[in-house]
Amino acid sequence: MNLDAAMRLAIQHADGVKGGTYPNPPVGAVILDRDGEVVGVGATEPPGGPHAEVLALRRAGERATGGAAVVTLEPCNHQGRTPPCVDALVAAGVSKVAYAVTDPNPVAAGGASRLAEAGIDVVGGVLADEAAGGPLREWLHKQRTGSPHVTWKFATSIDGRSAAADGTSQWITSEAARADVHRRRAAADAILVGTGTVFIDDPLLTARLPDASLAERQPLRVVVGEREIPSEAKILNDDTRTMVIRTRDPHEVLKALSDRTDVLLEGGPTLAGAFLRAGVIDRILAYVAPILLGGPITAIDDVGVLSISQAQRWRYDGIEPIGPDLLLSLIPS
Amino acid sequence: MNLDAAMRLAIQHADGVKGGTYPNPPVGAVILDRDGEVVGVGATEPPGGPHAEVLALRRAGERATGGAAVVTLEPCNHQGRTPPCVDALVAAGVSKVAYAVTDPNPVAAGGASRLAEAGIDVVGGVLADEAAGGPLREWLHKQRTGSPHVTWKFATSIDGRSAAADGTSQWITSEAARADVHRRRAAADAILVGTGTVFIDDPLLTARLPDASLAERQPLRVVVGEREIPSEAKILNDDTRTMVIRTRDPHEVLKALSDRTDVLLEGGPTLAGAFLRAGVIDRILAYVAPILLGGPITAIDDVGVLSISQAQRWRYDGIEPIGPDLLLSLIPS
Repeated sequence: MNLDAAMRLAIQHADGVKGGTYPNPPVGAVILDRDGEVVGVGATEPPGGPHAEVLALRRAGERATGGAAVVTLEPCNHQGRTPPCVDALVAAGVSKVAYAVTDPNPVAAGGASRLAEAGIDVVGGVLADEAAGGPLREWLHKQRTGSPHVTWKFATSIDGRSAAADGTSQWITSEAARADVHRRRAAADAILVGTGTVFIDDPLLTARLPDASLAERQPLRVVVGEREIPSEAKILNDDTRTMVIRTRDPHEVLKALSDRTDVLLEGGPTLAGAFLRAGVIDRILAYVAPILLGGPITAIDDVGVLSISQAQRWRYDGIEPIGPDLLLSLIPS
Repeated sequence: MNLDAAMRLAIQHADGVKGGTYPNPPVGAVILDRDGEVVGVGATEPPGGPHAEVLALRRAGERATGGAAVVTLEPCNHQGRTPPCVDALVAAGVSKVAYAVTDPNPVAAGGASRLAEAGIDVVGGVLADEAAGGPLREWLHKQRTGSPHVTWKFATSIDGRSAAADGTSQWITSEAARADVHRRRAAADAILVGTGTVFIDDPLLTARLPDASLAERQPLRVVVGEREIPSEAKILNDDTRTMVIRTRDPHEVLKALSDRTDVLLEGGPTLAGAFLRAGVIDRILAYVAPILLGGPITAIDDVGVLSISQAQRWRYDGIEPIGPDLLLSLIPS
């Protein structure tokens, strides 16, 4: 297997642990032996557990000697709850380390130069965009800005409606699309809705499996707004924790969530509109069903645009058919 | 080249003459010599000119003998303004004929059996779906229903708006998307707008090249509605012909256009809504720009849906990035 293919495999494993590693980054690692065969893979365990490189080396055992380690993030040079990964790589006797993204964290950085000093051939930037825009996107955003990464998710008909004229909306999108939303909830570490959504839809806001049982990992549920919500609201049940933030100011909300990395905004037009006008949305996920609804209930109302010259401009980052629907991913342009 | 690859080439050439052949079908043909080399390609000329097979055979000359003819539609067995294509194929001495779609027209049909009787190896159904859903779609619809095929084209923001709150809409989509619209106009044989669009936008509704000059072929411009439009409206200029149909009933409109095959509906919400409610749209082309506009001006208003159970259900038939925009093609589900 060549380096690119190994990096793709590492990225895939990193994707698989997304959400379970924060505040640590979700990293994937692949060990190739001298002949380029995959002899170990690993991905970051929950905080306190081993890092990706250490797991992959453990699985490779002696076959790592003289081989290559392929990692989505520059191996850390930092004694935290676990020892530095660079030490493990040097001890394993790999002859080459390839990584995708340079560690922006000053505490953990310097791994590449430590490895080079130990005589290891070090290559950085392998599929850097794929790793930085993929599993590491939210963590890198947090490192860079200090704020959580915010994804606004909405379901819509092809004509921009979130419900039919009489208010019915179950279901605009397919079962496949709704299952995808639950997978993304399980990978997020907070889900936001406004009090309006609690009053209208009374959602559980948990991550559930296709059989409706609770997923293993549950994000923090967050209700935003100034209105008091009823104590019997489903969002306050015992399935998992819920936080109520008594403000409508998106900046205040993000301040209150500053220990979070990956926030999924599922609010209706009021909350999403406030976040869009404040410019604090980092990605849009639009589940677009191939249906027409017409009528007055639009998925978003006021995004602070009066004239076409003020249009909020984004760019498509991903286009993925999910069952009969389309998932469009957009990032700021 | 194998049959599938040759058929793909034939489909591509058929696409290239779409719009220029009606009432004849836009057909493509590829001649392979004994070794499977492409020795001739052709596509239907405007009415009165040679059919695809004849053109391709002419280009292949003697190299067609013992070779194969690959055609998107069953070769015709009909003496019209031109002699039957089956005669030309037999005369050229091809040993094999592969076609995609069986001719539904009783006058022209029977080509396959005539060829088989002449001792030629005949294969039907090669990439039939691609040809039937591609270049032949509109013509097959017309053969089947007697009515023209209607494509509704609209440009929209990701949130379903056709203009910003103040009415400005130039431009929602990119130059690349607008150039694509002009190519599709040139391939249509009528473009429809309502009187409302004439009053608000005063469009030329011609097919233009990127340098703003007129394309060689111009579809008939059609204005639909009961209001009188001003004689100085641009749509009435001398660039090409214009028809005014004084009704709001989509069925009446299609009756008035019964000599047409491929109609492009570019009307605003009123006209498009009427056609959608009447169930006479055969394809939707949505140019979706990666922008958010919000506000009251939606691309479509009333499609006759009150409750989610009545949603107009379509399915995605094509998803194509065009510059920064997405072109979504939908057909009835």
